[in-house]
Amino acid sequence: MQTYDTIIVGAGYAGLTATRELLKAGKKVILLEARDRVGGRVHTQHFEDGSYVDLGAAWVGPTQDKLYALAKEFAVETFPTYDTGKSTLFYNNKLKHYKGLIPPLPIGSLLSLDMAIKRINKLSKTVDLKSPWNTPDAAYYDSMTLATWMNRQMPFNSAKVMFKLAAEAIWAADPNEISMLHAMFYTKSCRDFDTLMNVKNGAQEERFVGGASLPALRLAETFKEHIRLKSVVRAITQQDNQVIVKGDGFELTASKVIVALPPTLAGRIEYAPIMPANRDQLTQRMPMGTVWKTYAIYDTPFWREAGLNGLSATNEGYVTVTFDNSPKDASKGIMMGFVLGNQAKAFNQLAPEERKASALDTFARFYGEKARKPLKYLDHSWAEEEFTRGCYAGLMPTGAWTSLGKALREPVGNIHWAGTETSDIWNGYIEGAIRSGERVAQEILKS
Amino acid sequence: MQTYDTIIVGAGYAGLTATRELLKAGKKVILLEARDRVGGRVHTQHFEDGSYVDLGAAWVGPTQDKLYALAKEFAVETFPTYDTGKSTLFYNNKLKHYKGLIPPLPIGSLLSLDMAIKRINKLSKTVDLKSPWNTPDAAYYDSMTLATWMNRQMPFNSAKVMFKLAAEAIWAADPNEISMLHAMFYTKSCRDFDTLMNVKNGAQEERFVGGASLPALRLAETFKEHIRLKSVVRAITQQDNQVIVKGDGFELTASKVIVALPPTLAGRIEYAPIMPANRDQLTQRMPMGTVWKTYAIYDTPFWREAGLNGLSATNEGYVTVTFDNSPKDASKGIMMGFVLGNQAKAFNQLAPEERKASALDTFARFYGEKARKPLKYLDHSWAEEEFTRGCYAGLMPTGAWTSLGKALREPVGNIHWAGTETSDIWNGYIEGAIRSGERVAQEILKS
Repeated sequence: MQTYDTIIVGAGYAGLTATRELLKAGKKVILLEARDRVGGRVHTQHFEDGSYVDLGAAWVGPTQDKLYALAKEFAVETFPTYDTGKSTLFYNNKLKHYKGLIPPLPIGSLLSLDMAIKRINKLSKTVDLKSPWNTPDAAYYDSMTLATWMNRQMPFNSAKVMFKLAAEAIWAADPNEISMLHAMFYTKSCRDFDTLMNVKNGAQEERFVGGASLPALRLAETFKEHIRLKSVVRAITQQDNQVIVKGDGFELTASKVIVALPPTLAGRIEYAPIMPANRDQLTQRMPMGTVWKTYAIYDTPFWREAGLNGLSATNEGYVTVTFDNSPKDASKGIMMGFVLGNQAKAFNQLAPEERKASALDTFARFYGEKARKPLKYLDHSWAEEEFTRGCYAGLMPTGAWTSLGKALREPVGNIHWAGTETSDIWNGYIEGAIRSGERVAQEILKS
Repeated sequence: MQTYDTIIVGAGYAGLTATRELLKAGKKVILLEARDRVGGRVHTQHFEDGSYVDLGAAWVGPTQDKLYALAKEFAVETFPTYDTGKSTLFYNNKLKHYKGLIPPLPIGSLLSLDMAIKRINKLSKTVDLKSPWNTPDAAYYDSMTLATWMNRQMPFNSAKVMFKLAAEAIWAADPNEISMLHAMFYTKSCRDFDTLMNVKNGAQEERFVGGASLPALRLAETFKEHIRLKSVVRAITQQDNQVIVKGDGFELTASKVIVALPPTLAGRIEYAPIMPANRDQLTQRMPMGTVWKTYAIYDTPFWREAGLNGLSATNEGYVTVTFDNSPKDASKGIMMGFVLGNQAKAFNQLAPEERKASALDTFARFYGEKARKPLKYLDHSWAEEEFTRGCYAGLMPTGAWTSLGKALREPVGNIHWAGTETSDIWNGYIEGAIRSGERVAQEILKS
């Protein structure tokens, strides 16, 4: 039986980063990955014609310093998300184009929306990021959903509809699924609500030439002899100050184990001894969000000629938000439409042809009939991927942070936890995953 | 490889009932159970001196007809829960004794509490039990927690505290963890809020001589050759219209499989093909409640001599509710204290001696110094039991019923679902488990 200093489970950005840091420190490690690739929820799909799309996380933006540094180190170029021209809103059966960040709504709704965004930003500043349960009035905000807060905050329906669209795009969940305390935590974790929503100066500001997988692939390449793919971990046993990691056809031991998986996946491993009650109860309470990415690939980004930036929103149909995801050189036109939260749960039930028809309908509504004839259509959901089970991330429902939050990061014996869900900064993003990998490596090196 | 008509996974009351029904219909079946005993969340522990306690479900009450019928069939006697004399309330540092159902609170609080109970009863009548997502205003009630509703409904803090005590005892969860729609569903499912709370004419009206396991044990005895204990199911594969069930050291096939486990456990089985997205997303969102039962066993039920019925409540400390759980003949005095919801999550962190000291402190506060010297103290939590992971039952957080509720009972290919969480009547109770077993057997016999 092979023995290591540390076994890392899960080769997403968190696991890759932890592995690298421990190797740097001279440790004997192995990184086990269930899939036949690294990257986890970040996966760039390439096509024969040279084009590619990010099926998972795609963007990078200001203050995501670790991810920028990694990209730079591995010579992965970034480029601005296209946002020249007007945005589009299809609302109450009317199509409107507008410049800038302010959607064409009645002034009362705009003021209400603006006030709500300012209010959540202000509330978020009160959050204790490292210990959200210590936030002032934590119990109060953790007892209500984001939906409840929105209903109170916004008397105007249009404001609520717009806020909901933003919230769905931010969390890939319905506002009724998320604790208000979590919404506040997440908002501060990612700087503010504006950063979360926006392209320019926001979390969607830039993309990667070659796709968001590229930094992970190149990083993995530097220590590929320490990575074991197609190795599904089934059981982790702690005994005699050693940890035994068992999977289909293998059994390895180490002094320490890092589980770099989303909590709901971490909870499915068979632990001996069983996890402490609160750790298990927590992993029962951190479901993954629900999201489809729909992609239509065209010869050209034809909407640009019409003066449109490809950023659209609607509260009708399944696709509610679109982005121009064309390559840097605009050699193809790639339109990406998000299906989010409850729309995604309904989309799950559709046949592939129905999904395609619905997405192209929405694209045509925004960008004209030409949108109905892409060279290629594809869509992707992570909810039926056994080794992810939903995206973007594990979410805190009401009550979880205040009663079980401590169990999120606290090591259990020689098992340590990583993954973007454990990060206090850029929780839910690649940046958070990298930070969690660095944090967990330090945890182990210090212990 | 042995082939069956149906394999049933999980020998709680649901699985046992399904097995029996299918055997009656002449089917070749096997019931697989992970533990070395049947009964699931119902488990009576016996001691050398002949006394016994129910570590899990314990009571039976009016309209639980299936459970009464089963008890009668197997000659298991029931007897009234002791409730002669005064109840006890320790609130705001004052100890009070009172007769009847109405606690000694200021009249404003009492009226507020009464109004809230009437209101939830009225709201519950609107629920569509078979399809809670079709309830009028389902989206509205599913977007708020029970805590949010309570805050709105009860301006008086004392009313809220009392309602919270009741809610915690009913759901083994904090009101901030439960969707208001689920609270309404559950209330109707179990007749009304009064039934849920009360001893007389309520869900706690009677107990079983010999313990609540006895009907299960005697039922299992009638087909023990069809039960395989210590058989943990790890994987279920559907192929060629057959289902293959794999566990540690066994592999069986059948035309149909019934998974009679709580949803969070059902979600941990490895399915091939993987579950439909919404089924998996649902099982990520139905956490088990959190509860400890603490027991002190004395020579006699000495509180009875003081005119107390053993029913007490407090909002201080860990144990918040107690019941007289002495045997029918009062040959011992057995006091049972519940630690519920967030108190249970905190209790999870205590050492055994701290738990004991805390529970006995509370018993002494209610019943005097004599309570500090039991013959025996024991406590039990289901959260660290690998094959249950919490009690009483899987709960619906906000948003789950309306967006994913359909996936709770809907068969997936040849896999059918049972367990008390799938029952429309007496959901969360033994009665619901039995009903789910009958329902799933009919589902299979008709298909």
